[in-house]
Formats: sequence, structure tokens, C-alpha cells
Amino acid sequence: MSRSISTLLLAALLGWSGSALVPRSVAATTSPNIVIILADDLGYGDLGCYGHPTIRTPNLDRMAAEGMRFTDFYVAACVCTPSRAALLTGRLPIRNGMAGSEQRRVLYSKDTTGLPHEEITIARALKTKGYRTACIGKWHLSGGAPGFLPNAYGFDFYFGLRWSNDMEPAGKMPRNASMHPDPDPAWWSLTLMQDEKVFETNADPHTLTRRYTEEAMKFIRENRKQPFFLYFPHTYPHVPLFASDSFKGRSARGLYGDVVEELDWSVGQVLETLRKEKLAENTLVFFTSDNGPWLVKELAGGSAGLLREGKGSTWEGGMRVPGIAWWPKRINAGAVTHELACSMDLFNTSLKLAGVPMPTDRVMDGVDMSPILSGEGKSLRDTINYYRGGELWAVRQGAFKAHFQSAPGYGSPGNPLKFEKHETPLLFNLANDPAERFNLAKDHPGVIAGIQRVVEQHRASLVPGTPQY
Amino acid sequence: MSRSISTLLLAALLGWSGSALVPRSVAATTSPNIVIILADDLGYGDLGCYGHPTIRTPNLDRMAAEGMRFTDFYVAACVCTPSRAALLTGRLPIRNGMAGSEQRRVLYSKDTTGLPHEEITIARALKTKGYRTACIGKWHLSGGAPGFLPNAYGFDFYFGLRWSNDMEPAGKMPRNASMHPDPDPAWWSLTLMQDEKVFETNADPHTLTRRYTEEAMKFIRENRKQPFFLYFPHTYPHVPLFASDSFKGRSARGLYGDVVEELDWSVGQVLETLRKEKLAENTLVFFTSDNGPWLVKELAGGSAGLLREGKGSTWEGGMRVPGIAWWPKRINAGAVTHELACSMDLFNTSLKLAGVPMPTDRVMDGVDMSPILSGEGKSLRDTINYYRGGELWAVRQGAFKAHFQSAPGYGSPGNPLKFEKHETPLLFNLANDPAERFNLAKDHPGVIAGIQRVVEQHRASLVPGTPQY
Repeated sequence: MSRSISTLLLAALLGWSGSALVPRSVAATTSPNIVIILADDLGYGDLGCYGHPTIRTPNLDRMAAEGMRFTDFYVAACVCTPSRAALLTGRLPIRNGMAGSEQRRVLYSKDTTGLPHEEITIARALKTKGYRTACIGKWHLSGGAPGFLPNAYGFDFYFGLRWSNDMEPAGKMPRNASMHPDPDPAWWSLTLMQDEKVFETNADPHTLTRRYTEEAMKFIRENRKQPFFLYFPHTYPHVPLFASDSFKGRSARGLYGDVVEELDWSVGQVLETLRKEKLAENTLVFFTSDNGPWLVKELAGGSAGLLREGKGSTWEGGMRVPGIAWWPKRINAGAVTHELACSMDLFNTSLKLAGVPMPTDRVMDGVDMSPILSGEGKSLRDTINYYRGGELWAVRQGAFKAHFQSAPGYGSPGNPLKFEKHETPLLFNLANDPAERFNLAKDHPGVIAGIQRVVEQHRASLVPGTPQY
Repeated sequence: MSRSISTLLLAALLGWSGSALVPRSVAATTSPNIVIILADDLGYGDLGCYGHPTIRTPNLDRMAAEGMRFTDFYVAACVCTPSRAALLTGRLPIRNGMAGSEQRRVLYSKDTTGLPHEEITIARALKTKGYRTACIGKWHLSGGAPGFLPNAYGFDFYFGLRWSNDMEPAGKMPRNASMHPDPDPAWWSLTLMQDEKVFETNADPHTLTRRYTEEAMKFIRENRKQPFFLYFPHTYPHVPLFASDSFKGRSARGLYGDVVEELDWSVGQVLETLRKEKLAENTLVFFTSDNGPWLVKELAGGSAGLLREGKGSTWEGGMRVPGIAWWPKRINAGAVTHELACSMDLFNTSLKLAGVPMPTDRVMDGVDMSPILSGEGKSLRDTINYYRGGELWAVRQGAFKAHFQSAPGYGSPGNPLKFEKHETPLLFNLANDPAERFNLAKDHPGVIAGIQRVVEQHRASLVPGTPQY
């Protein structure tokens, strides 16, 4: 259904008047290109410009020096599938059935569902303004059934893996294969897709970052004369780690560093292509990660820097990630913003920049980040919801964060976490204490009560979507 | 004795030939100015350019963007007194009696000693080339007896506190006064010195950073026509914390942040003065800290970022600190170096730049950092010794660090630490694992044996100085 959805039908879904259906030529001259580069499991502390001592990321550091670095950028979920669903739709995963649960945190190949087709992705919204759209890299918003790949959600082009790179095992492998310091590619059998077809089986995992990058550069060059939206979700540094020959063994940080340094190279290639094609001044590029570092993978996982815990947890390390925005002449070079922002805001911001009105038939959770990017205003966001599966574990309001439940790390069915429900929520002042060391609950019962009211309002109006997995 | 030490006598001490005694006018045109700015207890993770999310340090970030940021810069001891002794003399504190012990880690006002007078400080060495020299700020290389203040060690001018700002209590104060979020200045009675005289009693602690800065700017302006060495060791962010009215309440990080942001302002004032006086291109400025963050002071202490532990410990957080070098047109703007360096290297580097030969009558522990600063070469250093008091607890060789003993944090006589001696040393690969999470001792017995040989050589040739406290 969704691939053939007509522009008019979509306009109706979005609640548009006819005036939104502007001619493509106008759109082409007024609508900026939008590129979202998403790393997988990259931690808050893993880039040079975020303080990592040994991983060298000169291209991302330069992107930050030429653009804006966010210190308080969040994702909407602490694992892959829901985080990606939220980024692309501007909605909390709990609303669209993509939140998962404690037992089923992400989609697997055996699942027969995916992102509900009535969801509006950035791609679908921008297509109404004549944008060419591509998803290059890891999708992870579908199970194995057909009809749930990017082309079903507004993407003209798709090239990449459907899921995480550890999700197509090839039979026998040693224990802890995914965190092996030098994994054997034969332990997995990766299927590269192009659009809805299998493009290659047993794809060489060493080549993914390079091939994704080549496809991204090609897409940019081929669409230089019209607005485009490139969603570029990398496979790495999710385990198992593989770098190309040019990067393997290059980083002091070992294989994890090699892989991040190759991603950094990739970002440099994208920005350089935009410059060469004279598109830089008409393109917003945003770099971020889908969740925090997978700490239980030890040296094959990343670092959250000074933040507590990592992927899978609702501590800061699980959900606060690097965020770098780049748009020469539109974003002040070298800016650092401490404003609150979330990956869901990329939806609102993209639509705003493209001149596409926001959907009016559904609850949206993003806000427009333009005031932050222009340096002219404050964030329109004052709350971050920290969902773990379908449950709201913590809420940040301004500088304060209350934890209603907590647990360390990722956990798995075989290695369950020790959950703790907090009768009196834990309370941290993230401005003063970003590492969440000092519980202030006793000192600020009023703050907790205020956050609890926000939670009650959120819950009262919440209509959870039908769980898709 | 030392204030009146003649240039010729000093030349003899330094092992010079007569040719080193160049005319002052030549020195003035060929010798760069050297400014060392030392923060007190500032952690590796406390600056924006080292990844802190809420402390705003635009001047230090700009200093790094215009200069060189070190990721692997160390001090020679994990507490104040020995760290400063090493920085100024280029020698391990164990050699000159300044190492202290587990029971007596720093000098106190009741002590009647100080840095031995036969030690050669950077100031004394540079005076032989006609440098004007000043120490502005916290000294902490003397007890309360006269004759051990900066003027006794080659400094023409001194203005500041003799010790830490918590070391002159004014009688009654509440428990944990030093870590109070809004301490009362009346709890301490600070004595400001100028040269060897009391300049002011009951000095207002809110004014120290501002007044030090004014003195530093005045010293620079007054000495603009000749080479100068400015040693500028700040009192803060050592507890108790006090910021001036312009900074108090300004930082999201609370009082600790206010104090660091005022230090950042101070650095900006120094660099701006150098620019205004057209001295920037003839001045090396180096910013660093004396040891890691004092973690037991909780919110009144800083952050080591992703590094383990803080002040007082021989884990990385105790001894790896921010290091930023600035010298327009001589240091490449925006450089980040991962080369190994230590505060003792400032001695050798300063002498090299000033054209002063190294002393030949004593063992030196610094190396010349010029190859790093010029971007032309590798570090001449491959070892870091982690002393705690008079004992060598750990050694880094290249990327590997072996711990022979370890303990968390600072400790005090009333709150002793749990020391652990390691029969088999702990071994960490700091390039791969900067947070010291994964002990590799079992995998690399050869590396441990190699480090043990280095330790044996060091110990075999070591002649400890007479302990001064």
C-alpha cells in the first residue's frame, strides 16, 4: 500500500491545504537538502570533540568546528528499533507500537511486522515537496516479512542491511563471537538489500562502511539539481566490528577505534561531496547515534564518557548521544549548544525547513530545532522521556531528572538485570551532576512532584499503539 | 642564600660554559616569553574541549582551537606539593625530598622546610638569560618558615597564597566546610603575600582569581620589552570554592562551574593581553592542572571524564590532566596530540626555548617537548612514573600501564584507604582502554616483565632526596 500512496492521499493524512502542493521547481530552489547520518551504538564519549583521548575523528571534529555541537542531545529509546522509529516519525515509539517490551526490545528477522504503514516518516513527508529520498544503511524497522522496508515508507532508494549485523548468524560460532577482537566474517551471513530485493548474500562486512559511503556520495551527486533527503544509518560501531583494510589496525583504540575512524572518514566524504557539488550551503547535515555504547561488549563497545551506564539503560549514558549539526553560513561555526534536543526533533525540523506542514491528525513528540540551529532562540523542548520498552522509567524536566525505575546496562533473557522500582524517585540535577552521582530526592520533593504531574498528564493522554513485536 | 645567588655561581651549578652568558639584549630579541597557567585540582573532564557537557570554557576552548590540545598529559604526583615541585624543577619529587609520604602528602604551615634551595627552578634557570620572572598565585612549596617563598627560587616577583585555600582555617567551622555549596569566607583567614611580606590578611577569597589575573596582566605589560617567565598557579578550583560576583551563580554546573568559568575568563584575559601587547607570536602559553579532581569533595570537586578515579590516586584520573599549548604561528592551530608528555617536560622545554643549557650535575626527569609542539616529531618520553608519596605505585610505558599497588581516591589519616599490593601487577592498555577497565596481566607477562625491568633500572640509580616533610 504505502509505496503506491498518492501525494494527494498523503496530503490528506498530513492535514494539508492544497497550497502545500507547490511545484517541484520552487521546492527545488527553496528547500534545503537534509542529510541525517546515524551511527549505531556510538557513545557520548567516543569522538575527539566529545573528549575521547585516543579515537581520532578529525572529520567529525571539523564538522563540529564548522557547525554546532550539542551537549544535551537525546534519543527517544535506549535500543535500536524504537530509537530509529522515533527519529523517522517524530513520535515516541509507545505511540506507534514500536516501543517493544522488556522481553522483546528490538525486531528480529522472524518477526512479520514492522513500522505501521500509517506512520509518516521524514522521507514520506518530504516527498510531497519533491524531495528525492534515500535510506542507505541499517534499517531495523521491520521483521523478515516483505512490505516493511524503506521503500514502503517514502524512500525512493534503499541500500543496506535490514537489521543489526549480529542478527544473521551463519551457524556455528564461538561464545561471545560478536565481541571478538578479530571476528571471522564467516560467522555471519549478511544480506545486502537494494530497494526490496536481495542485492547480495554473504556480503563482506569489511566493505559495508565504504560501500554505504559510495552509495551516499552517488545519491548526492545524482540528485544535486533537486532537493534530497538522505537518511544514512551506518551499521557500525554495532558489534561484530569490521573495518576495511585501510582502517584495520590504524587506531590506538583497537578495532572499535578502527571502525569509528572509518565512520569518521565516511562523514568527511559526505561533507566533501556536498562542498564539491556546491551544495554545502543548501544542506543541513546532522550526525548522531541511535543509543549509547554497548558496555557489556567490553572493548568492542564504546564509551559514554563521564555519563553513567550505556545502551539499554535509561541512565544518561544510554540515551544521551553525540549530536553535530552542519550547515555552512546558516549555523555559526564552532557553536556549542547546551539546549535540550532529541532525535525526534529532526522530524519537525526537517518538515519546517522543507516547508511541509506538520501532521495534524496524530500526536507528535518532536519540536522544531530551528531556533537552536540559528542561534537565535531557546529550545522549544523542556522534557525528555526515557522509555525502556513500553515503560516510562525516567523523565528529565529542565536540569532535573527523576528515575521511577532503574537498572544497569543492557541485559538479556539469559542475563536478566536487577531492576529497581523507586518508591521515592531518584532525582539528579544533570546540569550540576551530569554523571548522576548525587540523589537529591530528599532536598527537592517539589521538583519530584512537578515531574510526576508531567508524567500523569503524559499518561492520561497516551494512547499506546498496538505492539508490533 | 638563594635570592642573592650570583649568575656565575648558578652558571657553575648548571654546568655552563661562558658562552651561555649571552647579553641581555640578544636574549630579549631571541628568547620567547613563557607563561605557565596551572589550575588546582581541575580534572581531565572539566573543560568544554575535553568533553564536559555543562561547564562553559570558551576561552580555553579557543586556546585549544588556536593551539594544541594534549590527550596524554601527566603530572608527576597526584597531590599539590610534589606535583608543583616537579613542574618547576623538571625532577621527580622523590629526588629532591618533596615526594612526601602516605602520612604526609603535602606541606603545611607548621612545616619549617620547603623546596631545597639547591634545586633549580625554571625561573632560576631563565633568569640567567635575562628573563624577568614572576609567580602569581598559590605556591605550596614551603611550610611556614621564612626563606622558602618564590623569591628564594629565582622569582623576581611573587603575589599570592602560600598554600591551599583550605589551609588557614579561622577557628570554628561546620563539618565538611570546604565542600559547602556556599561556604562562608569567614571560615578561613587567608594571607596574601607579596614577595616575602604579608600583603593582606583576611583576604577576600572571592577576589583571588580576579586579583591574580590583574597582577598577571600588569606583569606582562610591564615586561613587554624583555623576555619574561610567568608562572601563574591559580588557587582554584581547589576547595573551598569562591567566585567573584560576576561569576557566582552563572554556571549550570553550580559553584564549581562558576569557579572554573572564572578561571577560563582569566585565561582569556592573559591571552588577550599578549595579543594587545603584540607578544602573542613570541610567547608560549601552557595551561594545565596540578592533579586530578578531588572526587571526595563531591559536587565541589571536578570530573576526570572517562578516566578512573581522581586526585590522590595513581589511576589515570589522578594524574592525567588537561594540557593546552598556545603559540600563534609556532604551534599549528587546532592540533590535537596523543604524544606522551608530563609537566616536568615544561622545565626542559622552557630551557630549550630560552637557549639555556640543561643542568649536568643532577638527574633530570623531564624531556624537551619542542618536537611535539612543532608538530615535527614524536615525544622523547616513553615512560610515566606514578608516584604516591615516596612509593612508585604504577608505571606507563608506551600504551601499557602496570599497577604495583592501587587504592581508590585521596584518603586521609582519619579515613584511610584500602591499599592493595598486586603480587602480579595489574596491566592496562591505555590506548585501547583509557578507563582502565580490563586487566590484561594474564595475556602480556612479557610486557609486565619489561616494565619491571624499567622499574628496577629506575630504582637502582635512584638516590632519594632527604624528605622535607
